[in-house]
Amino acid sequence: MSIKAVVFDAYGTLYDIQSVATVTEEAFPGYGEIITQVWRIKQLEYTWLRSLMRRYQDFSVITRDSLAYTLRVLGLKYERAAFERIMDKYLHLDLYPDASAALAAMRGNKLAILSNGSTGMLKALVRNSGLDRVLDATISIDGKKIFKPAPDAYALIESVLGVPPAEVLFVSSNPWDACGAKAFGLNVAWIERVTPEAMALAFVKSDLVAPLTMFKAIRTQMDELGLEPDYRIHALSELPKLVAARESRK
Amino acid sequence: MSIKAVVFDAYGTLYDIQSVATVTEEAFPGYGEIITQVWRIKQLEYTWLRSLMRRYQDFSVITRDSLAYTLRVLGLKYERAAFERIMDKYLHLDLYPDASAALAAMRGNKLAILSNGSTGMLKALVRNSGLDRVLDATISIDGKKIFKPAPDAYALIESVLGVPPAEVLFVSSNPWDACGAKAFGLNVAWIERVTPEAMALAFVKSDLVAPLTMFKAIRTQMDELGLEPDYRIHALSELPKLVAARESRK
Repeated sequence: MSIKAVVFDAYGTLYDIQSVATVTEEAFPGYGEIITQVWRIKQLEYTWLRSLMRRYQDFSVITRDSLAYTLRVLGLKYERAAFERIMDKYLHLDLYPDASAALAAMRGNKLAILSNGSTGMLKALVRNSGLDRVLDATISIDGKKIFKPAPDAYALIESVLGVPPAEVLFVSSNPWDACGAKAFGLNVAWIERVTPEAMALAFVKSDLVAPLTMFKAIRTQMDELGLEPDYRIHALSELPKLVAARESRK
Repeated sequence: MSIKAVVFDAYGTLYDIQSVATVTEEAFPGYGEIITQVWRIKQLEYTWLRSLMRRYQDFSVITRDSLAYTLRVLGLKYERAAFERIMDKYLHLDLYPDASAALAAMRGNKLAILSNGSTGMLKALVRNSGLDRVLDATISIDGKKIFKPAPDAYALIESVLGVPPAEVLFVSSNPWDACGAKAFGLNVAWIERVTPEAMALAFVKSDLVAPLTMFKAIRTQMDELGLEPDYRIHALSELPKLVAARESRK
């Protein structure tokens, strides 16, 4: 069946969350990278834990809480101004360099974001990066008050865009998100930005002592959840060809 | 209200999951500790992700899958015999040294385990460690096919023991588990085995480069989930006094 809508995860997929590191490094010299890695791991954990505990708070609250956790655990002093500067960067994340061209090349399809982000965060982010000009919709899981990978979150695609799962290509670089989308029944392209070979090499170089390598590994390598994405790609730039090929196959 | 039942988390609370490191180190010299840390982080992630995705598999499957993931990501070769030796250690984990005495001292209360572990794993573990002689029940979340911190998991305590949440003291060293139990309405004692001060010192010593310190930190420090355990203790040995004091207060 042909693809009618291409729907993207936001954080880590269209937007480079590691771009926060410039701001965290400025605020806490020497800790920039480790802050972003611990922050991310806890941000994700809190979305899952709060969903399971039925204690939903939106992503802006979770993002603040997980940053507070990170600074506390690393023994860094909380300073309001620095904290707010870091949080603000989340509304001005860098797009991956190939994002805009890839989106422009797929304009024949409906294009949207489905993200754990809150409506407010996503609106600001999409506008600040100029994607409001190419996206048909920016869908926040706010509407269901449960985070991905819960099926209710992915169900928002059909209810907002009116396109059934079989005609949606969902794109994510987050392994757990690719698996969740697959479990729900979407077509899934997983962006494998760090290959196993590159990861193995990073370990040899770091002699197993670099926490950044380890944290990066557990966020970038495909999970063992008994699910397999339909496509493994390495960059957003591969998408237009993939969608076109699928079109001609029908 | 007085406490009628004391219910324990198993992995990391009564049983030292780090005791697996002796076996992983033997199988993969130099990697013993890092394997156990990555394995644990993925084991937990998979319980939450599978619960949210509604793709339940029991804890023995998840434990195998997360170990396979860990070896793959670390670039270690899968060898069936080594893999099975490591898995087998999960059925023979060491009790924390103060576990048996603490349990014996609270025999006036109902004593039980509520664990994410599968019925089979828990039965073997409890028998191998001799706790079958002091526990009134070993409750697996298998019965509900959803993992902690989902409320349905904690609800098993009342349905098995017949003791309502207000008369149960739930004990866990896992911050997310202590929060989940609190959200459900149980009385909660959280075992803070690594104090913030000790953690801060470990960071200074490791100069931020040791992944083990970092992984340990994110598993041992209280989470920012808007919930606070009723009691913070540092060892199982503190429990009998705590329960007795609560009794005399009534």
